[in-house]
Amino acid sequence: MEYIKIAFDVMGSDKGLVPAIDAALRLISEKKDLKIILVGLQKDIKKELSKRKYNHEQIEIHNATEVIEMVDGIMDIRRKKDSSMVRSLEIVRDGIADGVTSGGATAPFIAGCIFILKRIEGIERPAFMPVMPTIIKDKVVLLLDAGANLECDADDILKFAIMASSYSKSVKGVESPKVALLNVGEEESKGLEFHKESYKVLKNNKNIEFIGNLEPRYMCSGIADIVVTDGYTGNIALKAIEGIGKNLLSEIKVALTKNLWRKLAALRLRKAFKEVSHKFDYRNHAGAIVLGVDKIAFKSHGSSDKVAFYASLKMTYDAIKNDVLNKVKAALENK
Amino acid sequence: MEYIKIAFDVMGSDKGLVPAIDAALRLISEKKDLKIILVGLQKDIKKELSKRKYNHEQIEIHNATEVIEMVDGIMDIRRKKDSSMVRSLEIVRDGIADGVTSGGATAPFIAGCIFILKRIEGIERPAFMPVMPTIIKDKVVLLLDAGANLECDADDILKFAIMASSYSKSVKGVESPKVALLNVGEEESKGLEFHKESYKVLKNNKNIEFIGNLEPRYMCSGIADIVVTDGYTGNIALKAIEGIGKNLLSEIKVALTKNLWRKLAALRLRKAFKEVSHKFDYRNHAGAIVLGVDKIAFKSHGSSDKVAFYASLKMTYDAIKNDVLNKVKAALENK
Repeated sequence: MEYIKIAFDVMGSDKGLVPAIDAALRLISEKKDLKIILVGLQKDIKKELSKRKYNHEQIEIHNATEVIEMVDGIMDIRRKKDSSMVRSLEIVRDGIADGVTSGGATAPFIAGCIFILKRIEGIERPAFMPVMPTIIKDKVVLLLDAGANLECDADDILKFAIMASSYSKSVKGVESPKVALLNVGEEESKGLEFHKESYKVLKNNKNIEFIGNLEPRYMCSGIADIVVTDGYTGNIALKAIEGIGKNLLSEIKVALTKNLWRKLAALRLRKAFKEVSHKFDYRNHAGAIVLGVDKIAFKSHGSSDKVAFYASLKMTYDAIKNDVLNKVKAALENK
Repeated sequence: MEYIKIAFDVMGSDKGLVPAIDAALRLISEKKDLKIILVGLQKDIKKELSKRKYNHEQIEIHNATEVIEMVDGIMDIRRKKDSSMVRSLEIVRDGIADGVTSGGATAPFIAGCIFILKRIEGIERPAFMPVMPTIIKDKVVLLLDAGANLECDADDILKFAIMASSYSKSVKGVESPKVALLNVGEEESKGLEFHKESYKVLKNNKNIEFIGNLEPRYMCSGIADIVVTDGYTGNIALKAIEGIGKNLLSEIKVALTKNLWRKLAALRLRKAFKEVSHKFDYRNHAGAIVLGVDKIAFKSHGSSDKVAFYASLKMTYDAIKNDVLNKVKAALENK
């Protein structure tokens, strides 16, 4: 059988390798054409696997003795040659696997993607693209660049729009993805020089559906399928949204569990709260692709649990299955 | 009796002058040493006032025949010489009132403050400073610049920190306000050149309590009393937070009113939801000061209702009463 193969860096995330392995076994039980190569300390991985039942055909182990820690920087990718992150990237580079997922530190992972997997021809700055929920049912918004390159130019922005449009079409099935430029105001004249140039370039391109500037307040409104920006702005907006979402939900929890009476009433609304938190739960969209490198590479949230790792692995699987890389390359050639 | 006098531009906000007048009458009933000069179409104001009971001693009307509309730009401040916004700023400039509140368009108001009220000596870029809630009870965070100047330098940032610290001490009673620099990461080396320079300048100043870089995810965590940044970044972060807060609360409302059963259970939790929404309700912090101009000038949210206008007027009153302008000037001289 011809398997889809994912190299899965199971070390270096906050919660350790147990949720990573649980997520991998769940996904292989659902996808019979998937093989996952668990990359990390063989001894530890074997120990965990021995406690579980699964189809041994679909799991491989690739030993790696080092770990890129959360505090490690970009340079540690060069230094820790036998780290699970470096090894999993090499496995993909060498064609042993079709894509990679890692729950390790973000900056070293992006650097590793560029060093080891190399950029797609014509791409100067690959982008980090998380998926965010919107208030429209089953609709998500892709944000890029969310932090790979603090500074970008209008040409980068156009390429982000083209790559993300191709991704949105092939993986999300959006026929004509709407692209917006993140800005402080809606009018064409708003923002920095960078925005005015990017606006012009986006408006003049016939292969994308550009809908104009978008203020961050409408990021999750479902107006746009894709929001393009430089990595600095994208990172600021992403972290602002993540933070306030968490704050609000925790405040609601505090208020609803203040006394027994409230707890009992809240219990009756459990399903309602689940609906909301499911929609806004980052874990269901935990994977962010590094778009613009010459392989499929997904970063799972550093604090990933089983649900988050499962979502990331599934996104990686979907991207490979839908041949996203070749579609993105074709789109770039026709721009 | 020596009154504190506020010039109140009651025109140009989304909801018209009725909530503005209601808010003014509420505040004068609470503050016996306050006189509010309502600036706008005399005929309309008189008509509304005639329907209400209030202490006539504490209300004046200043006629203005034009309105700066929400779609108007900076240049309309020069063009609409008899607008309520321009007239209320002039009243303050001429010493007839001690401070101004407006619910009109933000960009013209900030421009008007600079043109008409002039900058404090030594201040090149006055900042727009909204107040945001935090998850800590009764604690707020001041964000500046939130959009007056898209681009700022390290010297501006230091002055923002000094002015906001002085404001926080005198109005909010914070003994030693903690100042953080908004950035994509916490380490000193993170961010753009602008951040590295600003970090150095803030760290070396002995008159502020600088606690380092702060990621936007912790903006409302209560860690910092003051968050300084350039107007571009501040505007992006502010609008991202406003947007997702609104989205989340509206999603919760949808989920809780889906059927009668849920509605009944939610009714029992009304008080709990009120606690949360009160804390995060922007209307309770609707006023944003333009810090760095040579008078007290507050902008109320463009979609202000009675609650929001009341909060803005009260902030204006508090700032005048606490002699914020002179304290800010003294702090700048001693920096």
